[in-house]
Amino acid sequence: MPDQPSRRGFLKGGLAAGAAIATATTAARAADDPAITEIQDWNRYAGPGVDAEPYGVPSPYEAHVVRRNVPWLTADPISSVNFTPLHELDGIITPNGLCFERHHAGIAEIDPAQHRLMINGMVDTPLVFTMADLMRFPRENHVYFLECAANSGMEWRGAQLNGCQYTHGMVHCVMYTGVKLRHLLEEAGIRAGAAWVMPEGADASAMSRSLPLEKALDDCLVAFKMNGEALRPGQGYPLRLVVPGWEGNLWVKWLRRLEIGDKPWQLREETSKYTDLLANGKARRFTWEMDVKSVITNPSPQAPVIHGRGRLVLAGLAWSGGGRISRVDVSIDGGRNWTTARLDGPSLPKALHRFYHAFDWDGSDLFLQSRAIDENGFVQPTKNALRAVRGENSIYHNNGIQTWHVAKDGVVENVEIS
Amino acid sequence: MPDQPSRRGFLKGGLAAGAAIATATTAARAADDPAITEIQDWNRYAGPGVDAEPYGVPSPYEAHVVRRNVPWLTADPISSVNFTPLHELDGIITPNGLCFERHHAGIAEIDPAQHRLMINGMVDTPLVFTMADLMRFPRENHVYFLECAANSGMEWRGAQLNGCQYTHGMVHCVMYTGVKLRHLLEEAGIRAGAAWVMPEGADASAMSRSLPLEKALDDCLVAFKMNGEALRPGQGYPLRLVVPGWEGNLWVKWLRRLEIGDKPWQLREETSKYTDLLANGKARRFTWEMDVKSVITNPSPQAPVIHGRGRLVLAGLAWSGGGRISRVDVSIDGGRNWTTARLDGPSLPKALHRFYHAFDWDGSDLFLQSRAIDENGFVQPTKNALRAVRGENSIYHNNGIQTWHVAKDGVVENVEIS
Repeated sequence: MPDQPSRRGFLKGGLAAGAAIATATTAARAADDPAITEIQDWNRYAGPGVDAEPYGVPSPYEAHVVRRNVPWLTADPISSVNFTPLHELDGIITPNGLCFERHHAGIAEIDPAQHRLMINGMVDTPLVFTMADLMRFPRENHVYFLECAANSGMEWRGAQLNGCQYTHGMVHCVMYTGVKLRHLLEEAGIRAGAAWVMPEGADASAMSRSLPLEKALDDCLVAFKMNGEALRPGQGYPLRLVVPGWEGNLWVKWLRRLEIGDKPWQLREETSKYTDLLANGKARRFTWEMDVKSVITNPSPQAPVIHGRGRLVLAGLAWSGGGRISRVDVSIDGGRNWTTARLDGPSLPKALHRFYHAFDWDGSDLFLQSRAIDENGFVQPTKNALRAVRGENSIYHNNGIQTWHVAKDGVVENVEIS
Repeated sequence: MPDQPSRRGFLKGGLAAGAAIATATTAARAADDPAITEIQDWNRYAGPGVDAEPYGVPSPYEAHVVRRNVPWLTADPISSVNFTPLHELDGIITPNGLCFERHHAGIAEIDPAQHRLMINGMVDTPLVFTMADLMRFPRENHVYFLECAANSGMEWRGAQLNGCQYTHGMVHCVMYTGVKLRHLLEEAGIRAGAAWVMPEGADASAMSRSLPLEKALDDCLVAFKMNGEALRPGQGYPLRLVVPGWEGNLWVKWLRRLEIGDKPWQLREETSKYTDLLANGKARRFTWEMDVKSVITNPSPQAPVIHGRGRLVLAGLAWSGGGRISRVDVSIDGGRNWTTARLDGPSLPKALHRFYHAFDWDGSDLFLQSRAIDENGFVQPTKNALRAVRGENSIYHNNGIQTWHVAKDGVVENVEIS
């Protein structure tokens, strides 16, 4: 069935799908609905005016739409993670207040007037920039996803967490405003032989990573705004490094220094962590790019089907560190049959893509899956295909196909198909 | 000068612009900067963890970045406006908490579980939709600007308000998620002879307008999300009509009913208000489309130049209800000479476009202007050209070129060039 049927197509599609389907129109006839009188009464009340909220907040009816952390996951909330409520969102922009956070020693609280960014190491002229200095360089705006390398990490060892907020919620997507890192490095002058950059954060963990100079000179940004306004404190206010398509750990927050060198620094975050331990005991290192991936956000364990059989719209997200998503396939029977989903909205490189797939549910058990394909031809693998290559020791870079079981009563669970 | 110079180009550009310019590098040499010691001290403190803010908020250092209302402008904050702080933003996305609000009888406070949308009038089957019903139709995502017809309205009678928040802040731009209005109308079945739609709000003003059926069937959305999350209460939670490129008053909030008819309803909002009174005493009516327009957001009266002479980056916004922006010109001498600005970021139809222009300021008085041109070839006029055609009785649809005077000390004022 097409996703955007004419009215006739819509009704015919429902009938065509079998005798068991009672879809017809999705809305009640006006005369049947007792809520009409209520609606007519609403216009007697005037609520708050334009002076009520200088900085607006969501409706009290949306109080459940929040980031959530999992207390047992880490020893301390200072070095931990909270998760984006993907099942409550639509489109491709994540509102700033709902972007997941991963901190290694809490949120640095920084006065931007006091903040400085230093460039030192293998440069002609070590430089220190104020925030005002940075505003004199050419600015750019880009929509990029940011995914923690550990997103879906629990799923290496089977279906663990019941909700896409927890299985896939270490990703968000905003429009960044910043200065190309290249401009700042060129201002300092890169010396011959330089090949690496070490971004360093001003938080208590002094978060640092080794970044190849080639990537630094390509599309990295030193960003100061997200979705139009200043970065949020938990996202690195007032400055963060944006490393498009690469794992979130490299996107150093509270950025205070960039050191230029000729080899990687072998830092804690690239030796004991953020490596991929294989079955033979060896670890892959410097696996920066985030693989092609997707997940169905609705329905999902936290967002069951509440309206029963009939027309059901699946919504999901797909992304790839390699560029644009070219296609998403959807299965409702655990991967036996696949249909191409409808990609909607702007298709931007290294950004989230929104997809939908509508069909008429006959009320039987569903095993929902999505499989993304990026512009380089990479295809999202099954979890088992991934385990066959990578073993089961890994934490990071799990881009396996997710399965949701939808029971007859509309309840959804995280399951695995063997 | 190019906007994205190589390092050499950057320095040469500064020298080339004249002996009076002391631009050179924009950053201090590391050894000269006393702040270095401070920076090194920052990493001793760990701030809040991931459980601190389930729904994140801006840094306390951004407390000045808020919507502002002007108490003397209206008799009551219940029927009034607050303004987007454009001078504090960048990119093209407006964060939800900073989107301007214009209410005619305060904010309706609605429980989405109780909300209904009725379609009645010249239809085959009057229908009533719950929110869950709407989720069974195909969804779309689009970035659109929303501008109040009265934006810049005070400027008809000379330079009145000192800041682009007040002169141009009745505009915002977000990604909407919704259902094409066409799908809902087709579900009800439009009767022969129907030509108009009346959207009606559930607020105390029962806000209503007459919308041509042709536009309703073209690109209008019944939207339930903005920037990924539910609409904010002040933006029509849980449902608003999106009328791309047309004046904000038509984008009915708290949408509860759509009546189909064969002629316009001649409602208060299209007779006594939202009409354009000409010099001859006659009024233009049904002037829905927002004209091509732009404004320089930085520097501007609320955002003076604080760093003195040298490299200065102008930032601004351009938009057109007719589609995409094809070019923006910038003048620093009050319209005598024009240079093409750099358009940055995604160029989306009926959305804000971000532009930049960098040059080396010699410290003399500047008269900054921007002039947008859209894909249909419409050119933003001067305020005086507009007055010559429309007279000075108007309130709405002022898309005249804005002039900011930058004094030697960097202070910026709203002025007019005669």
